[in-house]
Parts: sequence; structure tokens; C-alpha cells
Amino acid sequence: MEFSSKLLENAVYEMSQLPGIGKRTALRLVLHLLKQPDQQTKRLATALQRLREEIKFCTSCHNISDVALCEICANPKRDESVICVVEDIRDVMAIENTGQFTGLYHVLGGKISPMEGIGPQDLTIASLVSKAKNGAVKELIFALSSTMEGDTTNFYIYKQLEGLGISTSTIARGISVGDELEYADEVTLGRSILNRVPFENSMKMS
Amino acid sequence: MEFSSKLLENAVYEMSQLPGIGKRTALRLVLHLLKQPDQQTKRLATALQRLREEIKFCTSCHNISDVALCEICANPKRDESVICVVEDIRDVMAIENTGQFTGLYHVLGGKISPMEGIGPQDLTIASLVSKAKNGAVKELIFALSSTMEGDTTNFYIYKQLEGLGISTSTIARGISVGDELEYADEVTLGRSILNRVPFENSMKMS
Repeated sequence: MEFSSKLLENAVYEMSQLPGIGKRTALRLVLHLLKQPDQQTKRLATALQRLREEIKFCTSCHNISDVALCEICANPKRDESVICVVEDIRDVMAIENTGQFTGLYHVLGGKISPMEGIGPQDLTIASLVSKAKNGAVKELIFALSSTMEGDTTNFYIYKQLEGLGISTSTIARGISVGDELEYADEVTLGRSILNRVPFENSMKMS
Repeated sequence: MEFSSKLLENAVYEMSQLPGIGKRTALRLVLHLLKQPDQQTKRLATALQRLREEIKFCTSCHNISDVALCEICANPKRDESVICVVEDIRDVMAIENTGQFTGLYHVLGGKISPMEGIGPQDLTIASLVSKAKNGAVKELIFALSSTMEGDTTNFYIYKQLEGLGISTSTIARGISVGDELEYADEVTLGRSILNRVPFENSMKMS
């Protein structure tokens, strides 16, 4: 692509560094900003930079937070004996949206992945283990994605907690509510039969 | 969506103001920036703001340019007697990429659209007409999209130039090179038959 302006080329280049945004999309976005009032670009630029510079993470669960202890960890109504281990802050938002979980979270910041060079020391596992050793934790729920990396990470943490008397579980895998059986993949369908739920329980939840 | 941080919420909101970017995509982009070095966010924010603040348009063709007269208009090798009228700077880039046009451009900045409240005075039509009246222009090529708005705009400009002895043309509509006839729409196929090209000419071009 040939640009008539260095400023434009530079803005398009930086925009196209974002994941899933190619050069053409980046150009469309940048030209859109040029058609809007100056203020919109200023607000976007300021919001991104302020976030990057002033970002804080909760000292306990490592969720993004504006204060030292996030709202969830600071809430006395949450059950601090149950901790749900997730990969990313988006998972926290997704589980919070269900309204079904009253415990606390622990955000790992990723999964162990030798292929990508991510080891246990790159995640917040040490802080989770020391939290577990302090005694208040009774149950750990693993809510990582069920990939090889997710399973490896679950197992690594499980091994670190051995002998502490903490019960561990993973979230249930099965057919999505509303899905047709015939379109489900075999592994999921197989797991949903193995981990079947007493009928009375399933009625309580719906 | 419930956010654990006002800074995050604000950055996601501003990002989701861009066209085609919803809240979820905006969150993914912002979290991506947080995982990258500080410098990347800073460069993006600075590039966008510098572009918005220092943006200039060529005084002759209204293309985006860092200087008063854009590279194309300032190039003595370009034929200033032929002007290609386009809607947007992306069209200039697309035509330049073909390497088939050696004249100059005129960027209208949009099309006349009563539905969207865009009249002739919102576009750079007056500047095009005064350029035409100065005498150097011999041919005008309309390269707007062939919608009702495009046709209206072409016709409006055509009327303004009456009596100046400037020849006008529109770019050819027809079946794309490499396309199968059976999948072409009727209007395009009809036009490509009406505007058929002598066989010798078609050989010269390929």
C-alpha cells in the first residue's frame, strides 16, 4: 500500500499491530477517526495511555483493578474458602455474569505452554500456592480451557497443593444448554454421559 | 459487561466507538495491548493523535498529504489535463496501485446524499469546478461507485461543467477479469455487452 502521508502511514501501521486488524481495516478505522470530531481521537488515545500507565492488578487475585484489593476480594459477602482458578480476566467477567459463583477468583495470566515458552514462573501460580498454604482455602475450582496446556496447568497446580487437604474440582464439560445432541462432538458427548447429574439436581438449576 | 476497573471500562468504551468493533472485540484488543510492552500503546496513541492534529489536505486535489501540494499533484510527469474524480483517498490508493493512470485526482470527500444530509456544499465540488474553469483540464473521469448517490453526484458535476468543453467519462463497468459469466449479475453483464471493446484493444491491455 502506498500512502500519500507519513502521518497516515504511521497511524495505519500502529493500528494494524492489533490482533485481527489488517492494513485495510486499520486504514478504514483511521479514516473514520479523521471524519469524527478531534475529541474522539483524543479520548481514545488518552484512555489507552492512561490504562497502560496506571493499570493495577489486585494484590490477591491478580484481576485488573483500580485499587490494591479488587471489589470481589474486598467484598465480605464472598466466600473466601472457595477459589476459582481462571486464565484471564475475561473468564472472571464471564463467570460473574452467570451469578452462580460466590467465592473468590485467582487469575493465572495464561497457561503453562512450553511451545510458547510460558513456564509456571511466568504465571501467578506461586501466589496461589502461598494463598492456599495460609489455610483459609478449602476448595479450588479449575476453570481453564480444556486443552493440553489447560490440563498441564491444572495438573501442575494440583501437584503443588498435595498434602494441604484442599479439595479440587474442574468445571463440568458437556452439551451446551439448548444444543442438539446430534451436532455435539464425541469427546464432549462422552464426557457428558460419564459425568451425568442426578435428575433432581438438574431440575434445581434450570 | 461488568468491569473490575474504570480505566479498563473507559478504554474498552472508546475502542468500541470505532466502526465494526463491538464491546467484546474492544476488550480483546485492549487486553492485548496490556500484554505488550508499554511502548506499543504509547506509539499507537501518539500516532493517532499526531495524525488528527497535524493532518493536512492537498490544496489542489484534497488528498491527505503532509505538505501543501501532494506528491501526485506536485509530480511534473503527471498529466494535469486529465482528472479522475473519486470519493475517498482509498480510491486514489486503489487506482495508483493499478499503475494505469497518469493524470491527477480530485477527492470529493463523499457523495451527494440527501438521505444522509450531504449536499454539494459539503463536498469539494466548488474547488473542482473552479479548477476546471481555469482551463488546463481537458478530460474528467468519474470513478465514483455506481449507486444512486454516485450517479447523482456525477450528474451534478456534469451540469456544472456544461459549456466548458471538457470531455467526461466514467470508468468501465463489466465482468471482473477472471470471473465466470454465469455468476455475474444481470446489470453488470448487460452493461459489459453494451460497452463492448474492440478485440484488438482488449488484447493490448492484458
